[in-house]
Amino acid sequence: MRVLVLGGDGFCGWPTSLYLSDRGHDVTIADNLSRRKIDVELEVESLTPIRSLSDRLRAWKEVSGREIGFVNIDLANEYDRLAALLQDLRPDAIVHFAEQRAAPYSMRSEKTKRYTVDNNVRATHNLLTALVATGVDASLAHLGTMGVYGYGWSGSAPIPEGYLTVKVPTPDGEIEREILHPANPGSVYHMTKTLDQLLFSFYAKNDGLRITDLHQGIVWGTQTQQTIKDERLINRFDYDGDYGTVLNRFLMQAAIGHPLTVHGTGGQTRAFIHIRDTVRCIEIAISNPPKSGDQPKVLNQVTEVHRLLDLAKLISDKTGAEVAYLPNPRREADENDLVVRNDQFLALGLQPTTLSEGLLEEITDIAAKYKHRVNPSKIIARSVWRAGMETSADLMTELPQ
Amino acid sequence: MRVLVLGGDGFCGWPTSLYLSDRGHDVTIADNLSRRKIDVELEVESLTPIRSLSDRLRAWKEVSGREIGFVNIDLANEYDRLAALLQDLRPDAIVHFAEQRAAPYSMRSEKTKRYTVDNNVRATHNLLTALVATGVDASLAHLGTMGVYGYGWSGSAPIPEGYLTVKVPTPDGEIEREILHPANPGSVYHMTKTLDQLLFSFYAKNDGLRITDLHQGIVWGTQTQQTIKDERLINRFDYDGDYGTVLNRFLMQAAIGHPLTVHGTGGQTRAFIHIRDTVRCIEIAISNPPKSGDQPKVLNQVTEVHRLLDLAKLISDKTGAEVAYLPNPRREADENDLVVRNDQFLALGLQPTTLSEGLLEEITDIAAKYKHRVNPSKIIARSVWRAGMETSADLMTELPQ
Repeated sequence: MRVLVLGGDGFCGWPTSLYLSDRGHDVTIADNLSRRKIDVELEVESLTPIRSLSDRLRAWKEVSGREIGFVNIDLANEYDRLAALLQDLRPDAIVHFAEQRAAPYSMRSEKTKRYTVDNNVRATHNLLTALVATGVDASLAHLGTMGVYGYGWSGSAPIPEGYLTVKVPTPDGEIEREILHPANPGSVYHMTKTLDQLLFSFYAKNDGLRITDLHQGIVWGTQTQQTIKDERLINRFDYDGDYGTVLNRFLMQAAIGHPLTVHGTGGQTRAFIHIRDTVRCIEIAISNPPKSGDQPKVLNQVTEVHRLLDLAKLISDKTGAEVAYLPNPRREADENDLVVRNDQFLALGLQPTTLSEGLLEEITDIAAKYKHRVNPSKIIARSVWRAGMETSADLMTELPQ
Repeated sequence: MRVLVLGGDGFCGWPTSLYLSDRGHDVTIADNLSRRKIDVELEVESLTPIRSLSDRLRAWKEVSGREIGFVNIDLANEYDRLAALLQDLRPDAIVHFAEQRAAPYSMRSEKTKRYTVDNNVRATHNLLTALVATGVDASLAHLGTMGVYGYGWSGSAPIPEGYLTVKVPTPDGEIEREILHPANPGSVYHMTKTLDQLLFSFYAKNDGLRITDLHQGIVWGTQTQQTIKDERLINRFDYDGDYGTVLNRFLMQAAIGHPLTVHGTGGQTRAFIHIRDTVRCIEIAISNPPKSGDQPKVLNQVTEVHRLLDLAKLISDKTGAEVAYLPNPRREADENDLVVRNDQFLALGLQPTTLSEGLLEEITDIAAKYKHRVNPSKIIARSVWRAGMETSADLMTELPQ
């Protein structure tokens, strides 16, 4: 397949691009390098050393013999170039990672709230408009988030795959209706993904676009079978308070002897997926698109569910790291249950990488290997959901010798 | 109250500004005059002759002795000025009409689809962000649309006021949940109002903003008790295929001897409200805002429900006009039932202007009086929902002498 990967330089986009290329697809990356520029703005760096995209692509050519194309384009602000790119490339499938993806960053300031909404909504709507206007018949797989469902809304009921059958009262009794699961976003970032869902519903209905929305859990791990082939291909490992995600942060903290930072009680239960499974899910999704006229297909891109405190204790048991309970900078329930359906992915052949398999490898091969690159002043989460909320002071000011 | 009216130069915004001023509120209009500029772009004009906003405001001062302030600002693209305006003015209430409001215009081209989403989402999100950032404690009343609910979704069940109680299956039986009514927008324009709802839910929950969303029906009529006081204050009457709404278009068509243009079978049933009731509803809404911490209050700003063909026949009976059945440029159900709850507005004192009261006055005082200003080539609706859909040729090429 000819595949266009929007946001193909990021944490999920890069390993997906390599995986699809390795699997024989003809891959082009479109990216404005925004993820690297936000690192500059936040004065942070990936724990793993990331080469320029040109170096990455050159290394991939050397290692695999395969070319990946690259177009530097801002999808939110260069509509005409986007439409021309679709016309020229005529992809069979488009994978859309090109949205600002950190909840804490999206809550950081007026500027970042506005950037997150503007960038994410405009990029997605420009893409949909351009697909309609050019008539390019590509299927679209978009990275959504489990956060669109919220946590605890349906009590003990499992989170369905996007749609929920409910009973609606009528004057004569009640009728059954299938609805998009009600939106319960916990941040401006998550909110943008709930807006995307409504864009997708409309363009699937009005224009027959073929869209899959992948509601992904928290991604952990770093390397895939492709990124591990050469250090120049290594994937990002974000550990900072804005872009670092919970499990990878625990692993980094354990490696440097920092307490494992639990926000609130740690009773929050979340869904997870290893980056190796993310890339497989993407190929499964673009190989099984919906038909024109179908409503968007929604798949929950998750493999396991864990309570955050249980994860902290697991890593504490393995490594001896302490657990620190910090004020929660987010507005969210202290505790929630979570059961998630991922039947469609399992039926389509996904074989999950479990936490027990990948965890020690991450600690030794990544977190310990690159721990000298940590800036301890960037570990504590400082973006708060409302002005005046309390955050912790730094728990460590210098790396241990 | 100190009231900031965003979009106060438009068809609903202008009479609302005058009404609120007449009722003793201290009104400031913020507007970028986009509605006038789109008229220029479409080469159309209001049936009624509209003065410049400066002339309108001067006339109002002469007629009423009251001043209305005016700030020329583009809310979607001048965030810093918006935040400064809120800081300076510190309004008690904000009425938000500042969105592109025509469904056909929103479907016209790549450019107008993108403009509608960009303008509407950015204007609304900028406003919410600025309210949070400045801490200005104004309640917000936003003009939504009945179109967020769609038509026919719930069969014979009445459309509730925003929220719906449904039963959700669980492993042990079922639970009741109150949800925002599922979104079923029929155009890019309507879709933006469904996006707004999710913005409002989030900012009410996370930041305690006090928001009322007014799901308005199709507005008809022209004059209010204020706009009628001087011809320089006259309100817009849009009759063109993009901005003209169905009932006012029928009245104009009857006045010039043009057939009444019914799209499809005319079996579509829609909710209506007279412009005189719109302005009253706005004052009721800003006088009864929700409390901080409440979910957004949703009110259905409608007074009557009619099948479009019945309206055409009613006007045909009164005037002798023919009915012409044209291809429908929209993708919508041929027929639907509609029952709408507006209990809260009735309980808060709204006394509806009925169709039978206002209709003849509109035909004689407005449509007949200004019929010489009609451009017959602008009557037929030509914006189509998908490329290649059929539209009618002009039914009249010159005005009868």
